[in-house]
Amino acid sequence: MNWKEENNSLYKSFSFKDFAEAFAFMKRVAVLAEEAQHHPTWKNTYNKVEIWLQTHDEGNIVTEKDKALAQAIDALL
Amino acid sequence: MNWKEENNSLYKSFSFKDFAEAFAFMKRVAVLAEEAQHHPTWKNTYNKVEIWLQTHDEGNIVTEKDKALAQAIDALL
Repeated sequence: MNWKEENNSLYKSFSFKDFAEAFAFMKRVAVLAEEAQHHPTWKNTYNKVEIWLQTHDEGNIVTEKDKALAQAIDALL
Repeated sequence: MNWKEENNSLYKSFSFKDFAEAFAFMKRVAVLAEEAQHHPTWKNTYNKVEIWLQTHDEGNIVTEKDKALAQAIDALL
């Protein structure tokens, strides 16, 4: 699945084997977010992780920061 | 703030200094969830963490499992 641009956000849903695998992914994304000082809105239920990216400082729109973080997140998989 | 029971879930919102502190909290909750084999639905944006607890196996209602996890989460703070 690719990132979808909707409601001024980049959105993607990820599914894993179980919670442990999903949260391991979240820990790796957290490192990327801190490095970029650009953080997602994300939601997790057991093996599913949903991520929304937008740039708050630019008025909650999608910017290059979001596209770069989306690429970096995809590169984890 | 206490846990609120709404829409067949226990709900609570937590605020932290920044993303790093919020995610450190999430890592500790993840350990509790795995130990209990009982996992939240939760959502994070920067320093804010929202948690919903319900028992999927019992038909998505609030059970003692949820109340026990809520207590254990509160004990982290």
